[in-house]
This record gives sequence, C-alpha cells and structure tokens, in this order.
Amino acid sequence: MPASLQASRVSPAIIRTLRKIRLVVFDFDGVFTDNSVYTDEKGHESVRCSRFDGIGLARLRALGIDAFVLSTETNPVVSARCRKLKLPCLQGCSDKLPALLREAARRKLKPSQVAYVGNDINDSDCLRAAGLPIVVADAHPEVLPLARWKTRTPGGMGAVREICDCFHRVLTAS
Amino acid sequence: MPASLQASRVSPAIIRTLRKIRLVVFDFDGVFTDNSVYTDEKGHESVRCSRFDGIGLARLRALGIDAFVLSTETNPVVSARCRKLKLPCLQGCSDKLPALLREAARRKLKPSQVAYVGNDINDSDCLRAAGLPIVVADAHPEVLPLARWKTRTPGGMGAVREICDCFHRVLTAS
Amino acid sequence: MPASLQASRVSPAIIRTLRKIRLVVFDFDGVFTDNSVYTDEKGHESVRCSRFDGIGLARLRALGIDAFVLSTETNPVVSARCRKLKLPCLQGCSDKLPALLREAARRKLKPSQVAYVGNDINDSDCLRAAGLPIVVADAHPEVLPLARWKTRTPGGMGAVREICDCFHRVLTAS
Amino acid sequence: MPASLQASRVSPAIIRTLRKIRLVVFDFDGVFTDNSVYTDEKGHESVRCSRFDGIGLARLRALGIDAFVLSTETNPVVSARCRKLKLPCLQGCSDKLPALLREAARRKLKPSQVAYVGNDINDSDCLRAAGLPIVVADAHPEVLPLARWKTRTPGGMGAVREICDCFHRVLTAS
Repeated sequence: MPASLQASRVSPAIIRTLRKIRLVVFDFDGVFTDNSVYTDEKGHESVRCSRFDGIGLARLRALGIDAFVLSTETNPVVSARCRKLKLPCLQGCSDKLPALLREAARRKLKPSQVAYVGNDINDSDCLRAAGLPIVVADAHPEVLPLARWKTRTPGGMGAVREICDCFHRVLTAS
Repeated sequence: MPASLQASRVSPAIIRTLRKIRLVVFDFDGVFTDNSVYTDEKGHESVRCSRFDGIGLARLRALGIDAFVLSTETNPVVSARCRKLKLPCLQGCSDKLPALLREAARRKLKPSQVAYVGNDINDSDCLRAAGLPIVVADAHPEVLPLARWKTRTPGGMGAVREICDCFHRVLTAS
Repeated sequence: MPASLQASRVSPAIIRTLRKIRLVVFDFDGVFTDNSVYTDEKGHESVRCSRFDGIGLARLRALGIDAFVLSTETNPVVSARCRKLKLPCLQGCSDKLPALLREAARRKLKPSQVAYVGNDINDSDCLRAAGLPIVVADAHPEVLPLARWKTRTPGGMGAVREICDCFHRVLTAS
Repeated sequence: MPASLQASRVSPAIIRTLRKIRLVVFDFDGVFTDNSVYTDEKGHESVRCSRFDGIGLARLRALGIDAFVLSTETNPVVSARCRKLKLPCLQGCSDKLPALLREAARRKLKPSQVAYVGNDINDSDCLRAAGLPIVVADAHPEVLPLARWKTRTPGGMGAVREICDCFHRVLTAS
C-alpha cells in the first residue's frame, strides 16, 4: 500500500454509478485523517489531515455535487477541520444511517444518488445503503466487502482528493 | 511489516488459550502508541494513538472481558488517553508483575486467565506470567521469544483493535 | 518511494539548465512539508518539516542563488517556518505566476533563470513558466508531466535539501 | 529501510573498537528524532522521539559508559527531551569538534575512547575524530563514508536504543 496520493483506477461500472451521484457523504476519522489521534497531557486532541483534500473538495463543489461530513463522535477537532475546508459537518450521530437518509431526503435525493466514504464498522449501514459505497485503502478489513470502490490512497494521505479527482475526471471528460 | 491494521491470524492452540482469558492487561507506550513521543519546547508530551482501538475495546467490554492499562511511568498523557477510552489505568508501577498479579487476584483470576500485551523488556515478567503473552508487530526484538502471539499490526496503528477483534471473532463464533 | 532523503540523480541536460538558474522559488505545503496538516481542537495548525532543509538553503545562499517561498494561502505556520529558515515568503497569492514573474523582473531575471518547485495543480502555471520546473517525489500525478526534474525525496523529508545539494554539487564541481 | 527498531549487526572489528569506548556523544536532531520538526502558528517547535531510547540510555549508564548530547542549535526542545532522558546536553556549538575534544579531555579520555553518533554534514568533523563513528540508517548520504557503523534503525525510531543495546550485549557477554 503506497503511503502517498495515487490516481484512482475505477471500472466502467463504477463510472456509470458515479455519474448518478449528487451528494458525497464522508466519515471523518480515517478518511480525512490517517485514523490516528494525537493526545496531549490535558487530553486535547489533534489530527493529521492532507492539504491535497482542499483542492479536491473545491473541484467537487465546482461540479455542483454536494458534500458533508457525518461523524459518530462530537469532537471540536472535526468541527475545526471542516470549518477550514468549508464543509458542513454533522456530529454526534451514534447511528449514522438515519442522518444520511434524512439529509438525502432533504435534498430530494434517493440513496442511489449518494456516495458514502467510510473506513470502519460504524460505517457499515451507510455503506450498505449508499448508491456508491467507498472505503479508503487502509479501511478496517471487515468493511472491505461492503465497498464497491476502495481508494488507492490511504485515509489522511489524500484519499478524499483521489475520490474528488475521479468525479472531476469523469464528469468533465468530453 | 504493513503500517496499517491487519486482521489477526492465530493458531488453534492460541484460540484455545484465548477462550480461557477473562482479563486483558495492556502496556501503554508502544501498544496504544507507535512508541513515539512528541515533545514541545516546555517538555510537554503528546502521543499518537489509533481511533481503531476504541471500537475494539467496546467489543471486548461487550464480551464481558475485563481490561486495564499498566504503565511503568506516571504520565498525564496516559491518563488522558485512557480516560477517553474509558479504560482504567495503573501508573507508576516500576515493577509491573506484582501489580498484574494483585489485580488478577482481586478479580479472583489465575494468571492463566490473563492476557498481557507489551512491547519492551520492562514487560518481560508480565509476558512470562500471563496465560496469553502477546507482543505487537514492532515490539523490541528481545521480547519476541516471550510471546505466544505477535500481532500483525504495529503498536499505535490498531494493534489493540486487532487483538480485541480476535477475541470478538473467536468468542462470538457459533 | 523511499521515505528518507535520497541524493539526486539528474541528467546532463538538467545540469546544463541548472547552471543558468539564479533564483529558486518554492511552494510551501507538500515541498517543505509532507503535505499534511495537524489541526487541534481550536483549529490551530502545525506542519511537519525536515531539519535537513536548513543546511541545504544555507548552501544555496553560499552559491549566491536567491530563493523564496510562494504560497497561495496566508498562513501563520508558513511565516513561522520561513522565519526560522531565514527565507523570504510571499503569501496570499491566489494566482502564483504573476507574483513569480514580478519577483523575477525585480531581480532583472528572465523566467529561464528561475527554478520552481511545486507539488500540486495550483503550481501548474509556475511550473510551465519556469526555466527549471521541479516537483517532489510525491507530487500530485497531474503535475508530474509539467516537471523536468522529480526529486527522489518526498516533500517534507528533505526534498528541499536534495535540490539544494544538487545545486551545490554541480556548481562547486571543478 | 525498515521503519522500526532493528537489532544491530556489527562486525568483530567494530566490537573490538566498541570495547574501548568510555563516552558516547550524540547529535540530537535526526538521531533522537526522525529529523522532522513540527512547527505551529507561533513558530513553537516539537519533535518526535522514541520511547525505546530511555531504556537504552539506562543500560549504557549501568555499564558505566558516559554519554551526552551535542547540538549546533540552541533549542528548548532539545533541553526538554534531554531533561526527560536525564542526559546532559551541550547546545549552541556552531563548531562541535572543539566541544567534543574538550569534554573528552575533561574526562581524561582520548578520542579513540569516544563514540560519536550523527546524521548530517555538521557532524563530519566529530565523525572523523571519534574512535567509533556511527551514523543512523537514514543519515545524509554525504556522511555515510565517514561512519564505521550504520545503525539498522532510522533516527527517532530507536536508533539510540539499537546502539545502547549493542554496547549492553557486547559488554555483558561472558
């Protein structure tokens, strides 16, 4: 598994599915980060993200595709990073699927028009429900079977960028 | 050695031993962390842990298996991370074995019912005494011979999760 | 891709180009850093740089070659690191090329006398304009075709040092 | 190059030299650290060290071998880490060799009784003068020829421990 950003390789079937997507929902830890957490003596946390992701999300926005972060935990680190990325974020969703379905419905979208990106078993229901279930290169082994697309880039190393770049490449191709 | 979480591969003999375990005792540095420490200009320390471990410990708890952290040093970073993981922690144990035996006895458990997870030579006595001695993938070479199980995941990358997942898989299998 | 500093291997054609360079312009994120950003609970950022780079920049200075950092974002982390490296830095350049051309003209230099080091698509125009376009080992795949020289060292691991060392080796060889 | 602690493999000739050593002098950055520096928005620095090193230095002390850190820069991070390791540290030595020779003489030791551990070209003079010149696995390519022993462990990953363990193994062998 290479530790740096890799361009995606996706099948024609995935490209067909991707063309229908109008909303991308991201898990935070392990997707925007390498799933590590830095803890100091007071219990304050920091996370490691990739500068590559910002340009990716701007590309997604330029395509008119909506996106937000859905996180089980309520954590100020997640809010801080999402604020910087200008990405809405829903936290404290112990059960993520209802939140995903509610947000999709609010946008008058069917689950088949939603891509979900996760890395661990608390993403299982969302991966099962989403039209395009995606996991990062270093996702937990138990969720790999639930994904139709596994990125080549690990979480926090530009996995988000790899996904956004793929949308950009597919949807801007003449 | 892969740098990401790997599912365990354990022999039938280890599985038989694992079925008897009622308590898992963890070293902290090098097990919950990659054995690195981040030091700032004032000497304040931070450590790098894995978000994977939280779900693992919850699974262990759901199985009714007890767990705690045993650390030689007294360090606020250890307390901070354990508080977040809702994991009891005993610190300042220059000699870890008496603490392990005392805690086992307090739970009316024999050493054969205790698994110990370590990574360095100050874990040697506990590894020798425990019914299931475990070391992480990147443990110090001198303690490898003391372990019956070496995780495939390095410390701080989800080694704790790999261990907890294995308990979960073995003990929930029909 | 090795994760540590590697000595450069450059062709005779690149060496001929390098001999004409009087100014090296560096992107910051992904060049001086591994393109990661550490975010804390308050949104404060930190970056990871290499101690190798300082000696490299001193060597460049000793050769009488000018250098500065050109960054899209305005970020106190960039200012802080550049201050330590005694390297001028221009920030908040949403369009980097005009800034590069203006700084070159101010030094009475032609673009052919300027080397540019980047890692992502917002470096594309500068890479196209510079006499010696350089990317780091782990640059985004889309900018690789724009470079004449790809370092063997990843960004933040001493890529800047590898480049400066090459200038030193070529220009001090008898 | 493995990223974790490796046991040393040293020749009989090196072992003979090692038996004469009474003092080990360490460079800090790149030896106790992975040569990275974490810079925050205010320019405050942090470094990444290995918990493995503490036990190594305790072993060296138990053998009656003296040790200290010699650093070009004056940096509170170095002081902070050395304080934790109970290791004396001399900083602000723009020229390290005179400091090394003075400290050796103060202990009535000849340079042949001193081991020096470094990773970059500002360690060159000390490596040339020391009886046992050592570099870490990921040292700068230009200093490799000056070393008689290159550790198998990279700096900051337990390179100091690998060296101390080797002294321990050689000097406690019957």
